[in-house]
Amino acid sequence: MPNRLSGVLCPVITPFFEDLSPNPDALIRQCEWLLSQNVGLAVFGTNSEANSLSVEEKVELLDRLVDAGIDRDRMMPGTGCCALSDTVRLTRHAVSLGCAGSLMLPPFYYKDVSDDGLYASYAEVIERVGSDKLRIYLYHIPPISQVGLSIGLIERLVTAYPDTVVGIKDSSGDWSNTQAILERGWDDFRVFAGSERFLLKNMKHSGAGCISATANVNPAAIDQLFVAWQSNEAAAMQEKLNAIRDVFQKYPMIPALKSAVAAYSDNVNWRIVRPPLTVLNREQQETLISELDRLNFEMPGI
Amino acid sequence: MPNRLSGVLCPVITPFFEDLSPNPDALIRQCEWLLSQNVGLAVFGTNSEANSLSVEEKVELLDRLVDAGIDRDRMMPGTGCCALSDTVRLTRHAVSLGCAGSLMLPPFYYKDVSDDGLYASYAEVIERVGSDKLRIYLYHIPPISQVGLSIGLIERLVTAYPDTVVGIKDSSGDWSNTQAILERGWDDFRVFAGSERFLLKNMKHSGAGCISATANVNPAAIDQLFVAWQSNEAAAMQEKLNAIRDVFQKYPMIPALKSAVAAYSDNVNWRIVRPPLTVLNREQQETLISELDRLNFEMPGI
Repeated sequence: MPNRLSGVLCPVITPFFEDLSPNPDALIRQCEWLLSQNVGLAVFGTNSEANSLSVEEKVELLDRLVDAGIDRDRMMPGTGCCALSDTVRLTRHAVSLGCAGSLMLPPFYYKDVSDDGLYASYAEVIERVGSDKLRIYLYHIPPISQVGLSIGLIERLVTAYPDTVVGIKDSSGDWSNTQAILERGWDDFRVFAGSERFLLKNMKHSGAGCISATANVNPAAIDQLFVAWQSNEAAAMQEKLNAIRDVFQKYPMIPALKSAVAAYSDNVNWRIVRPPLTVLNREQQETLISELDRLNFEMPGI
Repeated sequence: MPNRLSGVLCPVITPFFEDLSPNPDALIRQCEWLLSQNVGLAVFGTNSEANSLSVEEKVELLDRLVDAGIDRDRMMPGTGCCALSDTVRLTRHAVSLGCAGSLMLPPFYYKDVSDDGLYASYAEVIERVGSDKLRIYLYHIPPISQVGLSIGLIERLVTAYPDTVVGIKDSSGDWSNTQAILERGWDDFRVFAGSERFLLKNMKHSGAGCISATANVNPAAIDQLFVAWQSNEAAAMQEKLNAIRDVFQKYPMIPALKSAVAAYSDNVNWRIVRPPLTVLNREQQETLISELDRLNFEMPGI
């Protein structure tokens, strides 16, 4: 049985070749580096451009990662798609490969859907995958999905499937929502903040850690706060994390993460994004790197 | 070369078996009935629950329709997905089958994307499909996709690909936007209103027709207004169409369309929707049908 996850996980950015096809070897290397920084792998998250990849592309990348020996106990691939059939297929594949968890968006095309409809979506996936190895971490990201998960819905799912619906990533950006979830105190329910900005607060309220875009670029420091959140230095560590995140948030996040990895790894192909995203222009790239330099930012080992 | 389309098209509702798999034979029969009412087939539209179907499911359904002899000259399948690779695959398949057009959503997961990014999305699809038989009708439906197509973006696409980007469905619900598109007067650009509520107005401004949810239930009457929009009876015909549409708009549209088709075709399976949608409850079903009865609504031949 997979253990429930905690700590810092990274929605790993997806490297592309110039023809916009995914580059599995570069993804494997990136995952190895992230694991070396003690950060887990939420591949196929929002920041992975997962929703710009087909199910086939995700299945193949996941196979390549596992074949390369990437630790499945640290993997929480995003498997929630618009179509029930796609979500079932991808989730089933992740379970069959032995991934520790699945991070699951609700179906996000149709808006103003009811909690009954969202409950049915998750329940159908769970019944169809039909495995006691399935561990779902719900993915609440209303600013992007525009389809949120109410606390009442979460409660229904946890009550019906206590051994399967085991946690959530809250990317609402609204701490009061995260806090309200934490206060429900469901047995061993793992609450991940969607940004390291809320990491210290989350840990103080018995949260499980965070799953954050900027773990792609600043993994070790974020993990250090996770480890040392009870120390006297925790508040200062949080401040430093925020300063780095502030820089990235001045730019479109995914192109900025990719520009930084390209610059610090000296591999210009890392800049490539799939449409509808666009790369940072030259001026943005330069100001991003110079702002990071001013903060003595580094990416050792990348 | 496919002709450019005009008239009334229907985003055909998708029939499911009780296990939620698509029912190709029922879809074929429905398409035959719609064609008998002189309505074209925008299969895999929003109201088809297309975004709750995998690409494989759509490919198979399209194959079955064409194998059954459904007129490809009347078909404009929806082929726009979140992932570039999915959109290319499905669009290429529609072109290879000889469908007259493709109705194309922009990628809709990532929000606040730039016109440059959306332009690149469409341009990549066009270049990768690489066929002079491709005819794209853009799909502007910001209330649901939350990613809209600006007039500047449309202009760039029409200018770069005048023989490929040949029309639009405007489901903004905002007549002033439709009018602004019509006033640009691009050569033979086909502007479809996203609802028959705007059909008469659209025709008076040189529009091409409409692609409307309620063409699933009221096809002949909508087509009659398209044919007779210059007659003295046109305003009265528009009023009657609006009265029927008003009834459906009191309910969640897709479940209501399916409930009506189930009731008038005496086939209860038509009610089935995929999550995250939910069927109308019994009271809603009854009030829907009784309201339609009061308007002497019929679905002859269904």
